Amino acid sequence: MDHTIVTTEIDLDDTPVVTVDLDIMERNIRRFQAVCAEAGVKLRPHIKTHKIPAIAHKQLEAGAAGIACQKLGEAEVMQAAGIEDITLTYNVVGKAKLERLVRLAGRCDLKVVCDNRAVADGLSVAFQEAGTRLKVLVECDTGAGRNGAQSPLDAAELAAYVAGKPGLSFAGLMTYPITAHTAGFFAEAYKELDRRGLKAQIVSTGGTPALGLLRDVPGVTEHRAGTYVFNDRKCVESGVATWDDCAMRIRSTVVSRPAKNRAIIDAGSKTLSSDLLALDGHGRIVEYPGAKIAKLNEEHGVVLLEDGAPAPEVGEVVTIIPNHTCVVTNLHDRLVGVRGGKVETVWDVAARGLVR
Amino acid sequence: MDHTIVTTEIDLDDTPVVTVDLDIMERNIRRFQAVCAEAGVKLRPHIKTHKIPAIAHKQLEAGAAGIACQKLGEAEVMQAAGIEDITLTYNVVGKAKLERLVRLAGRCDLKVVCDNRAVADGLSVAFQEAGTRLKVLVECDTGAGRNGAQSPLDAAELAAYVAGKPGLSFAGLMTYPITAHTAGFFAEAYKELDRRGLKAQIVSTGGTPALGLLRDVPGVTEHRAGTYVFNDRKCVESGVATWDDCAMRIRSTVVSRPAKNRAIIDAGSKTLSSDLLALDGHGRIVEYPGAKIAKLNEEHGVVLLEDGAPAPEVGEVVTIIPNHTCVVTNLHDRLVGVRGGKVETVWDVAARGLVR
Repeated sequence: MDHTIVTTEIDLDDTPVVTVDLDIMERNIRRFQAVCAEAGVKLRPHIKTHKIPAIAHKQLEAGAAGIACQKLGEAEVMQAAGIEDITLTYNVVGKAKLERLVRLAGRCDLKVVCDNRAVADGLSVAFQEAGTRLKVLVECDTGAGRNGAQSPLDAAELAAYVAGKPGLSFAGLMTYPITAHTAGFFAEAYKELDRRGLKAQIVSTGGTPALGLLRDVPGVTEHRAGTYVFNDRKCVESGVATWDDCAMRIRSTVVSRPAKNRAIIDAGSKTLSSDLLALDGHGRIVEYPGAKIAKLNEEHGVVLLEDGAPAPEVGEVVTIIPNHTCVVTNLHDRLVGVRGGKVETVWDVAARGLVR
Repeated sequence: MDHTIVTTEIDLDDTPVVTVDLDIMERNIRRFQAVCAEAGVKLRPHIKTHKIPAIAHKQLEAGAAGIACQKLGEAEVMQAAGIEDITLTYNVVGKAKLERLVRLAGRCDLKVVCDNRAVADGLSVAFQEAGTRLKVLVECDTGAGRNGAQSPLDAAELAAYVAGKPGLSFAGLMTYPITAHTAGFFAEAYKELDRRGLKAQIVSTGGTPALGLLRDVPGVTEHRAGTYVFNDRKCVESGVATWDDCAMRIRSTVVSRPAKNRAIIDAGSKTLSSDLLALDGHGRIVEYPGAKIAKLNEEHGVVLLEDGAPAPEVGEVVTIIPNHTCVVTNLHDRLVGVRGGKVETVWDVAARGLVR
């Protein structure tokens, strides 16, 4: 199944335009798949990075075991595009979403996370009424300080609670990302589960930068990663990719050179997002690596140029590697797939904006 | 002309959902219009804040002189919705956009800014070829350090350059925002224009927070403002609005309470954007004003709760006033207009994502 639109009508100089180098993307997909295979874990790509069914299918064809989605709307789009194995790594709360979740679970092999009893109660009522059973992973906070059960004991007790609930079955443990505490947390959680006669069939870790830590965590069965498919400035700064591994590039035009050391580009926060991720500046300009995208307004990028270095003129198109690909994708209705600098594919970002 | 969709099928508890209180919005529109009238300047609302033709029409019906757009795609959408007086406050660069600009200028009363000769040259060639004439405002950097002519002399010289170009006519001066230097810059620019036999028919200033400075700037004929229609946390912190003037509210559900002082809400950076605008935290929770939205991941908001204060439980829906409305609008396909807490209107964000 291929949802791509083939076109030659895209003008890559009509900027800003978000491009994906297909050779790089395909290499990223193969490479990450190989690393996971070597580590003996399944890869479950997180589609929040691209939100495009055709790319998810490429990941599955390369050997991925299924996909992860962050919101129900993403999962619905991916299921409708023929994807059969989906894990929704988000607490589902509220009547409207529970009804949708029941329908979705009837159409694919669905797993959902849960980190508290109120969420488990809601899932249980919905699936008991539907007369079916939902596989539930217990989300664990193994050091990130976001959500998840706060201790191995809490995780095991929630697992037992889930296992005892009508309409639910306990399927395993999930965490994001891998930290220095993850291995210890899980080792202890396995013991607590064992004491309750339970076993985590699935142990799911996540994060592109965390790949190097995967071997340190005992019992992991699958790893979820999103950004690896495109890579970005954060990945390079984290040491898990090189600039040459960055498939997503935003083409942007210099629209003003108001001062000697300042250029204004047509990519602002509505194109690049304002995510800094603790980096200095808002992206890397490939042709002028010493320049700094110092500030973003909505449609303006303010670039500080290096003293004495070559500088772009008004009308010049530059290429930006963004700080964070996942949020760039979500700003744009389409991404343009290029190969050897030529347009090969235009994808609709089918799950763009689906925050529900 | 009204492009609204009337529906009662929106579930305000299916979150995150972006609502606009219509009573507050209508009051904001009337009030800002009155303040501009009192100051003796025309109001030209900037539609980047809402990107919705029906709201632009409300602003025009209240007395606005026309609208401002930041990107060509926004202007095309607004013109197609019947709006006749449009100023595009952005340098237009590149063949594809110049062709579109010529077509657009044939359909409405269009003004465009320009801050350098290369942009003027491009506009001139396109409009000379088309056999028509474009009204051009010279953009001035009166203290913001973004783009614009850097001095009154530069502005006047560019105005003379524009006036001498086939296909173009010099229509006036434009700046954003108003700073302590704006009055002095413009006073000097008027003298320099006068020396060249030119006059700025239009002098256009911008910015919602700048309204209080409007009377200090001599010769202003119109003011462009966007955010005032909704207002946001930045407006309140700037002293130009109260919390009760904030029409946009994001409804969000608490999906986890992993720790005593921590709640996780279903609004992350893909719902609220990561714009901080130098504020502390990512928005104000109306029901828990002492809580802080300390961190956003893409779909998670991490809320730090006050010690000893009431705290929301899992499943509770809270209401958020965002830091920056304009970027929130751009993340969502629809905004929901409510009155007295009931859904009255659902708008498509018609110009969402139109960064070209």
